[in-house]
Amino acid sequence: MDERVRRHAEVLVDKCAEVEQGDMVEVSASPVAEELVEAIYERLGEIGARPSLSWQSSRASRAYARAMDEDDYSLLEHRLAAVESTDAYIGIRGSRNIAEMNDVPPENTTAARNANEELQQAFDDLNWVGTQYPAAGNAQKAGMSIEAYEDFVYQAVDRDWDEQREFQAQMVEILDDASEVRIVSGDETDLKMSVDGMIAENDADDANMPGGEAFTAPVPDSVEGTVLFDQPRMWRGEEILDARLEFENGEVVEYTANQNEDALDEILETDDGAKRIGELGIGMNRGIDRFTYNMLFDEKMGDTVHLALGRAYEESVGSDCERNVSSIHVDMITDMSEDSFIEVDGEVVQRNGMFVFEDGFEE
Amino acid sequence: MDERVRRHAEVLVDKCAEVEQGDMVEVSASPVAEELVEAIYERLGEIGARPSLSWQSSRASRAYARAMDEDDYSLLEHRLAAVESTDAYIGIRGSRNIAEMNDVPPENTTAARNANEELQQAFDDLNWVGTQYPAAGNAQKAGMSIEAYEDFVYQAVDRDWDEQREFQAQMVEILDDASEVRIVSGDETDLKMSVDGMIAENDADDANMPGGEAFTAPVPDSVEGTVLFDQPRMWRGEEILDARLEFENGEVVEYTANQNEDALDEILETDDGAKRIGELGIGMNRGIDRFTYNMLFDEKMGDTVHLALGRAYEESVGSDCERNVSSIHVDMITDMSEDSFIEVDGEVVQRNGMFVFEDGFEE
Repeated sequence: MDERVRRHAEVLVDKCAEVEQGDMVEVSASPVAEELVEAIYERLGEIGARPSLSWQSSRASRAYARAMDEDDYSLLEHRLAAVESTDAYIGIRGSRNIAEMNDVPPENTTAARNANEELQQAFDDLNWVGTQYPAAGNAQKAGMSIEAYEDFVYQAVDRDWDEQREFQAQMVEILDDASEVRIVSGDETDLKMSVDGMIAENDADDANMPGGEAFTAPVPDSVEGTVLFDQPRMWRGEEILDARLEFENGEVVEYTANQNEDALDEILETDDGAKRIGELGIGMNRGIDRFTYNMLFDEKMGDTVHLALGRAYEESVGSDCERNVSSIHVDMITDMSEDSFIEVDGEVVQRNGMFVFEDGFEE
Repeated sequence: MDERVRRHAEVLVDKCAEVEQGDMVEVSASPVAEELVEAIYERLGEIGARPSLSWQSSRASRAYARAMDEDDYSLLEHRLAAVESTDAYIGIRGSRNIAEMNDVPPENTTAARNANEELQQAFDDLNWVGTQYPAAGNAQKAGMSIEAYEDFVYQAVDRDWDEQREFQAQMVEILDDASEVRIVSGDETDLKMSVDGMIAENDADDANMPGGEAFTAPVPDSVEGTVLFDQPRMWRGEEILDARLEFENGEVVEYTANQNEDALDEILETDDGAKRIGELGIGMNRGIDRFTYNMLFDEKMGDTVHLALGRAYEESVGSDCERNVSSIHVDMITDMSEDSFIEVDGEVVQRNGMFVFEDGFEE
């Protein structure tokens, strides 16, 4: 077995999911990830935890969703009972074919999600982590050979996470103390927002593997200005390109996209909260050096900023602050590597991807 | 998709597990069986049932069992919670390599089983069915090509089960009314037992797919005589050949085997009930025409009788009768196709595999 797989398993079990002896653990994966599952199971045995294994079969899920009546979806009671008796959850993505669910009726996908909000909430209450196995379908989407994609994934995952966390902590501290944040890139992005009273979080070896961002939530009504998301965003299998959004009093008042503007419209029309920003994230994982159409990696990429339309994470909202509520959380990314800066309370803290606390930073 | 796979899925869902709209269903399989899982999921969607999918990974199970401390096994609380909220369970066997667990410490296998008796009991209370997918590892063990093995499996499974049930009902009625059963084959098998007060069961499209037997339980103390099990019995990866057992007052008093007698000894020494017979079964599925080292099929083979050392099934034990109790239930098989007969209360009811209610029976 590739030693990187074994180390991936160890960081998932020991650090991200914080598994202890006697814990009930659920592992969930597609069979393409069997070697990682095997390594995780070995580690769970060493610790003396008690595992179960869920199979993500997109072929089975598709066949089911196409045969199912939209009105017949109901809460998965046996899944809820299991999750409520579980301590830690390790979810592994990895696909032979990421388009497998593309011909499922979208109303059934929505019905399934709506029927299982209670289940989703139970998952959120666990010690959980989501990660990626370098499977062929994901390599193909990234336009990479399997071997190159493996190197890409492990470069992002197989890191000194203590060191990474310390590096990020510097930006987290700046964001946590901040009142106003301004993001400027090229001619088309100049966005201001208040983060006053909000909490900045350090995402390292936690609920995402790879982690690698500092994030917080803006005050919902405070976002003003324009932003160009110059990295593609996938939505129901479609690629939204160069989405431009204009904000007034925190709300999107105008928008365009160079491709699939309809999809952008659909996102914004989901509910009231979908027109507002729920997250400001700053990518800081320099192991991720290219865009691969996979948000787990893309949003952590060094030299990027992402904003999420929709729901704010509870942990980033201060106790006296309003939380943006929505059924969606759609991250969108802007490249900050050239002709760009981030300003906090009037002071430039990042220019062209380089942070104020790094050698080589030029104000 | 092979239409036989679709029909297999339908009999499992509709008949064996009796799934209804809104039922919580668990499907459990190895990824080699994905096409059958897909067909089952499609059928569950048509019915409006709500599924979950468990992955049997022998590689992961092996890695875990080898790393685990024997003393750390405990009840799988999340699995128990799930099963207690489940209506129906469809378990699919099918292996790439049936020897995958052969280098797991047997004491860990035992510890895992002992820690989860409550879970096993919860499974037994479900509408459950166990079946087989024609995977390469099973084909190899049977000494057959994949295509030939597929034909073998579907010949056993893809039947008119109403007709099969009626055929078997004739033998069930004879057994149910019987007081004494005598099994004679060649020079070495002549065994008598009382089934007085016991209940004969008709196993067709029920908890096993394929089904295909009439079975009951003997009165524990009543078994007398000798039996040669001339079909191989696998035990922890070893093949026991030509086991000969002598019974007095229901208990094994002498035994030999031509190969792996130690394994036979280990079975008999498990506990007190392991030295007694818990089941008398008569194979009646003529779709199964050869021995394949797979008890699910072997015990249903036409022209065979099987006896199980150990535990009697509750449903076959009359309310006024003693039930043989043991932690094991080890079926062993005798070929009845030549020089053999079954006698019920002094009357021959099967000779050389042909039943008294069939054309061509010769008393």
